[in-house]
Amino acid sequence: MTTTRSPLAPARFPELPVISGVRLAACAAGLRYRGRPDLTLIELAPGTTVAGVFTRSLLPGHPVRWCRAILPLGRARALVVNAGQANVMVGPAGDAVVREEAEAAADLLGARPEEIYVASTGVIGERLDVAAVIGRLPELKAALDPAAWEAAASAIVTTDTFAKGSMVRARIGATEVTIAGIAKGSGMIQPDMATMLAFLFTDARLPAGLLQALLVEANEGSFNAITVDGDTSTSDTVLLFATGQAQNAEPARLDDPLLAGFRDALAAVMTDLAKQVVRDGEGAQKLIEVRIAGAVTAASARRIAFSIANSPLVKTAIAGGDANWGRLAMAIGKAGEPIEPERVAIRVGGHAIAECGHRLEGYDEAPVVAHIKGREVLLEVTVGGGPGQATVWTCDLTHGYISINADYRS
Amino acid sequence: MTTTRSPLAPARFPELPVISGVRLAACAAGLRYRGRPDLTLIELAPGTTVAGVFTRSLLPGHPVRWCRAILPLGRARALVVNAGQANVMVGPAGDAVVREEAEAAADLLGARPEEIYVASTGVIGERLDVAAVIGRLPELKAALDPAAWEAAASAIVTTDTFAKGSMVRARIGATEVTIAGIAKGSGMIQPDMATMLAFLFTDARLPAGLLQALLVEANEGSFNAITVDGDTSTSDTVLLFATGQAQNAEPARLDDPLLAGFRDALAAVMTDLAKQVVRDGEGAQKLIEVRIAGAVTAASARRIAFSIANSPLVKTAIAGGDANWGRLAMAIGKAGEPIEPERVAIRVGGHAIAECGHRLEGYDEAPVVAHIKGREVLLEVTVGGGPGQATVWTCDLTHGYISINADYRS
Repeated sequence: MTTTRSPLAPARFPELPVISGVRLAACAAGLRYRGRPDLTLIELAPGTTVAGVFTRSLLPGHPVRWCRAILPLGRARALVVNAGQANVMVGPAGDAVVREEAEAAADLLGARPEEIYVASTGVIGERLDVAAVIGRLPELKAALDPAAWEAAASAIVTTDTFAKGSMVRARIGATEVTIAGIAKGSGMIQPDMATMLAFLFTDARLPAGLLQALLVEANEGSFNAITVDGDTSTSDTVLLFATGQAQNAEPARLDDPLLAGFRDALAAVMTDLAKQVVRDGEGAQKLIEVRIAGAVTAASARRIAFSIANSPLVKTAIAGGDANWGRLAMAIGKAGEPIEPERVAIRVGGHAIAECGHRLEGYDEAPVVAHIKGREVLLEVTVGGGPGQATVWTCDLTHGYISINADYRS
Repeated sequence: MTTTRSPLAPARFPELPVISGVRLAACAAGLRYRGRPDLTLIELAPGTTVAGVFTRSLLPGHPVRWCRAILPLGRARALVVNAGQANVMVGPAGDAVVREEAEAAADLLGARPEEIYVASTGVIGERLDVAAVIGRLPELKAALDPAAWEAAASAIVTTDTFAKGSMVRARIGATEVTIAGIAKGSGMIQPDMATMLAFLFTDARLPAGLLQALLVEANEGSFNAITVDGDTSTSDTVLLFATGQAQNAEPARLDDPLLAGFRDALAAVMTDLAKQVVRDGEGAQKLIEVRIAGAVTAASARRIAFSIANSPLVKTAIAGGDANWGRLAMAIGKAGEPIEPERVAIRVGGHAIAECGHRLEGYDEAPVVAHIKGREVLLEVTVGGGPGQATVWTCDLTHGYISINADYRS
């Protein structure tokens, strides 16, 4: 974790509540970093169900392959996470390492290996010291603590400048349930299914199939709606664990009215974590929200939004406080999506710049410049008369990104 | 034009020959810049045929719309180019300005407006001072000179640090013909059909339809195979003019054996100009060649190559002289193209790093680091056993790119 905290970071790590059935511990195993925690064990009570979404990379990490393989069972008893080595592209040895980790944790906790989830983040292509991981598991088990959220959130980071957590409460029928989550991510961020690492925990009782549907739905507007650099990790993983300890009435389907509040709550906590990842984007000085309306479909709106959110020219203009809206026009045009040029409208910070495909007469740049010089920038674009809308979040592109990535091997 | 020349620039502007039927002139019209030439007139002899490819942006500039509209006629008598204002997204007035320019030049040269090609590069969304352009045309006409290549190449640039030119000779049957070209471009470069601005001239006699087929073919492996920042301009234009003065035997079809030498020559001069654009990429310190083999098709190989060539993490690693090949794995995986993970091989500067999907035992990083610290970097990736191959060129991503684009309104 870098010492200089992002200017967009929240003031402090949030108060996360005890989630009945979840206990956490972290330690410094010296896997790559020195003098900081890098290994986390999270124990889950028997009966915990699990849902997961993973990177769509065609060269996924060995832990991702493992999690994908065991997900159909739908049961989880623990999560083991290390930072420093990503365990990606190391050949058959990489798969063997994950299995050893799962077997060791399963032995320790009286579970099956197929109930142990594993995640790794860090350098690609180097071997993980599995003996160092396994050797520390007993002490982690002894230290398990239902309140150790910040310790766990701090141990899973790499180039992050702050630990990320979020929580929310909801009702399922008469029962109050809680969702808490932690995440890491700062660079190599355009999750294509899930971001680098995010782990959500709830005490709700929800069968694994339904939990998966809930996760996929909430993921679309949260972790799948952010980008730092357009680069998709080999290790993106979002897992949602439901311990069932809240003993709520069990909804049957995604559209069950019982679930309305929980769905909103899950979306809220996942969006909060996703935006925290962007707030910690490498070199970020500004949080940028891109809203597209009037596209032919939501998917089309989303592609236009990402065309803007990933444009180096848009991101550097905002970094420089330059109201260079022509670069928005460029990014809209290059997206290759159907638009109606004579209906294109652009607003920045609520100030209209262009309508009907060209700049407004008497456009005054001053309030736009003032808005762009702030910490949070809102870009709104209408591309036609269609129903498609999308919102994505990104950050500006600064010298900090270059310094971090030209010097640091993450 | 910036004062600090790219470290990748050629030593000097090349000697370009007279192309019979082509005369050039440039002047400082003060359209945006002060004290530098920004307006170019190139006169073409009666009988000149023309071919063109343009940006695929869905918000194309007004000059692009004009050129596209007149291209079916296949005849050209002049080209008028200004730098400073791009004449994009200014509404109906933008189209009117181009027509006025074409009509004024046509009157002056005794041609039809539909024979006058117009190109503009610079700021989007601002009106071009058409009176200033038209007012200078008579003096440009008086100054027309068949040798004024460097003056013309220097007057069409914006953030470029050097003027770009190239030439080559070929035979069509017994007749020697010459091709010469000039180009500009430095940022907002991932041409999707053509780069910012490139103009090619030949004295060959070739009908417009055949000329168009030749241009499209050569464009695919040259201007459509480069990227600086993945951003596609609203104004990308490549025009190829054939004055016919060489009086060669006229080939009938693209695959006519008479044309073999000309096709190679056209590809060579266009690739040279395209690589000069990358060598002048904003902030570029290194020229990077990405070669993909083993993909399912050439189009698939090309998409993987661009996934690497546009990855900020790959480009910053190379800028930092960091042999962080895991970022190549990331960029291969995120491309979404069919690959065979267990056959993936990676070579940098000819040194094997990974084969069969994982790092080689005993891999020695030292020669790879030495290669990456040089000015020209070669990345070779095999992604499977398929026949698809592609080569693209890009540059590294440095603090210079951020400085240029966070401060300068191009």
